Amino acid sequence: MTDFESFKKQALQELLEWLRVPSISTLPEHKGDMERAAAYVRSALERAGMARTELIHRAEHPMVYGEWLGAPGKPTLLLYGHYDVQPPDPLDEWVSPPFEPQIRNDNIYARGATDDKGQTWILVKAVEWLMQRDGRLPVNVRFLIEGEEECGGEAVARYLSEKPAQLAADAAVICDSEMFAPGLPSICTGLRGIVYGELHVEGARQDLHSGVYGGAAPNPLMAIAEILTALKDRDGHILIPGFYDRVVEPAPAEMEAWARLPFNEKEYLEKEIGAKELTGEPGLTVFERTWARPTLEVHGIRGGFTGEGAKTVIPARAVAKISMRLVPEQQPEEAVQQLRAAVESATPRGVKAEFRLLHGAPASLVDPENPFVKQAAAAMEEVFGRKTVFIRSGGSIPIVGLFDEHLRIPSVLMGFGLPDDNLHAPNEKFHVPNFYSGIEAVTRYLERLGA
Amino acid sequence: MTDFESFKKQALQELLEWLRVPSISTLPEHKGDMERAAAYVRSALERAGMARTELIHRAEHPMVYGEWLGAPGKPTLLLYGHYDVQPPDPLDEWVSPPFEPQIRNDNIYARGATDDKGQTWILVKAVEWLMQRDGRLPVNVRFLIEGEEECGGEAVARYLSEKPAQLAADAAVICDSEMFAPGLPSICTGLRGIVYGELHVEGARQDLHSGVYGGAAPNPLMAIAEILTALKDRDGHILIPGFYDRVVEPAPAEMEAWARLPFNEKEYLEKEIGAKELTGEPGLTVFERTWARPTLEVHGIRGGFTGEGAKTVIPARAVAKISMRLVPEQQPEEAVQQLRAAVESATPRGVKAEFRLLHGAPASLVDPENPFVKQAAAAMEEVFGRKTVFIRSGGSIPIVGLFDEHLRIPSVLMGFGLPDDNLHAPNEKFHVPNFYSGIEAVTRYLERLGA
Repeated sequence: MTDFESFKKQALQELLEWLRVPSISTLPEHKGDMERAAAYVRSALERAGMARTELIHRAEHPMVYGEWLGAPGKPTLLLYGHYDVQPPDPLDEWVSPPFEPQIRNDNIYARGATDDKGQTWILVKAVEWLMQRDGRLPVNVRFLIEGEEECGGEAVARYLSEKPAQLAADAAVICDSEMFAPGLPSICTGLRGIVYGELHVEGARQDLHSGVYGGAAPNPLMAIAEILTALKDRDGHILIPGFYDRVVEPAPAEMEAWARLPFNEKEYLEKEIGAKELTGEPGLTVFERTWARPTLEVHGIRGGFTGEGAKTVIPARAVAKISMRLVPEQQPEEAVQQLRAAVESATPRGVKAEFRLLHGAPASLVDPENPFVKQAAAAMEEVFGRKTVFIRSGGSIPIVGLFDEHLRIPSVLMGFGLPDDNLHAPNEKFHVPNFYSGIEAVTRYLERLGA
Repeated sequence: MTDFESFKKQALQELLEWLRVPSISTLPEHKGDMERAAAYVRSALERAGMARTELIHRAEHPMVYGEWLGAPGKPTLLLYGHYDVQPPDPLDEWVSPPFEPQIRNDNIYARGATDDKGQTWILVKAVEWLMQRDGRLPVNVRFLIEGEEECGGEAVARYLSEKPAQLAADAAVICDSEMFAPGLPSICTGLRGIVYGELHVEGARQDLHSGVYGGAAPNPLMAIAEILTALKDRDGHILIPGFYDRVVEPAPAEMEAWARLPFNEKEYLEKEIGAKELTGEPGLTVFERTWARPTLEVHGIRGGFTGEGAKTVIPARAVAKISMRLVPEQQPEEAVQQLRAAVESATPRGVKAEFRLLHGAPASLVDPENPFVKQAAAAMEEVFGRKTVFIRSGGSIPIVGLFDEHLRIPSVLMGFGLPDDNLHAPNEKFHVPNFYSGIEAVTRYLERLGA
């Protein structure tokens, strides 16, 4: 039997192989890569000693399932991760190609390094280590590793609503979030929800010459600008009527804990964001703005001419990709209705505008006093030698809401990413020591739960 | 010798061949096509009996020159056209492919059919007919057929400023505008100027995850929306300080003549534009809004993610292609300065914004009482059997300003296009009877000037 150090090094090499597979769920041309990435983690689950594994097909991409239920009387954990990744564009900003993982300065650079193949691998390898060392696990585990997290797919939701008993567990463990700072163990207790869709705007029947018709014909690109600025002001305040009605502010104790977090706004601006200045609602802290307040963002605008040179066109149609992040108690369906009403009243003369929903998920919160959360915090404290902090994330992990709705279980978000890991951006990375510590912390967590 | 009818039919066949060449000046991959299109018209000038022809290289694409100066004591005309065309996208909206000309319902469908190969061909063929019939021309002619009209190239401007004597003439004739209505002979006496450029906006150092950073990080796409709406209000009124200071209103007589033009706003909206409603400054007629008032339009916005599916990105950078149409007395340089100042004061927190000029040209006006204009009006009246109307165009033909500046000559804009010819749009067309009448009208015009 190998020792733990060699085991972890070997785990890293296997992770690099997995990262070579461009499993981009949102792009149809990568369907084969999705199958390959799923097969790779399924065989890893078999090697880890799962009594049963399965590829579960429900929507576009398969879910990988694995179970070992040989510890009667002990808790059952649902270990969740995802093998799909975001598209890598813009490609020319990557220092090394996104699907040719490279280790530089103790970081793995690759698309999916931290979101979420690297963190999923922590769960797989912690279980494998315990199984290899002890011939058994201290708790029961079910793995669910899906392939539609980044494309808002329906696979998990359908499966959970059809067969919740197949995933029955006492708590879910998700490694898909980040530590607040290097070396500071962190558990994420809150996530924002999301509504993502497209704003379609139509003007003239066909593209028009801006010289001949400019001044009389509607311009859908300008209409998008007008609608967007009617939805959100320059202070980041969303102008959609009723939008803030259900927003619940964080409890005073939580706000106080946030105030004690090691955070330097100047460093955050300069090192992490690299812009001239931060934006957002005045009078609120960065934590409130990114964790506890809803937002509205535009991700891309299609239409007209964006090539090299000059084309004087008034496009017939334009589309804006927009999303809203939601906070606890906001309901995605209601937010979409409010958005649609606001778009309707903000639509300028001459055009038709319609918001088409792509996907939505509510925000979620877990109680830091829950025993599964407390044990996770203690396990991380042991490994990192510092007190675990409870933070939130501004991102959305819709699965947390689904586990709550269908399985009635809390989700423990043990995150080992770092704030500058470039999620969804070029040069995504994962800190190798965090990968190793993650395996140790999850190992300790399962041992504590089984004790 | 063929008769005039057969000659014109043959001219049409030759035009179709020329239209097969995708001479898109703004796309570098069509450089070879540009050379082919230039060679095609040069050999046509030789066949038309020009005493001398030449390809003149100054910038990206060659100008085609041809001269016949064998009528001493008679006026010299500079006959101008352009062989370059706009990009054809969106391709999927063309009924027949843009570079496979098709004649349907007496219209030639092809990119460049009317703008400007078809109309340039009128000039070439009128001259060829007279030369073939009489063995000489009634006036002196110089052809200048350029290849950078659609890409704002510098070739003609450089040549005119270096060697104005090479193009010395008494008046220029340009066939690159439209008739006000089918069968109604029209001369364009005014054109809007243009300023075309790109608004570059930079936010964070790199693309960011909108969940993690939304609420604190600047979004360059949203900044573009904010800047655009600060530059122009929903009524089409441009908010740039000082922008309207030099704007000269049309004379009352001109406005009265416009009011007598056969124009049905409802038909214009429904048949020509095909939108829900017209837009633009309230209280002004469509003619004022499109011919005599400046505009600001956005033609495309690049940045972020516009593919299929959902990507939750806050892009680091975004670019908007924008143009302003200028009216008489507005100066392009000054308009750019005013725009830059307005962009600076409209730039929201957290981003840098910069307007980069691609090209500019002033507006132009010619006097309907000029004898070269009056003779053109009379020639068209003879051919079409209706009184010629004097109109303006909202488009920009920068060459008119250059001829005025360097050669000190008026430009006679005899246009044979129709308002629904889909310039710069899918399914561009040219009405075959107008092509034939155009050749006849230019023939009569040269005869009248030489009489």
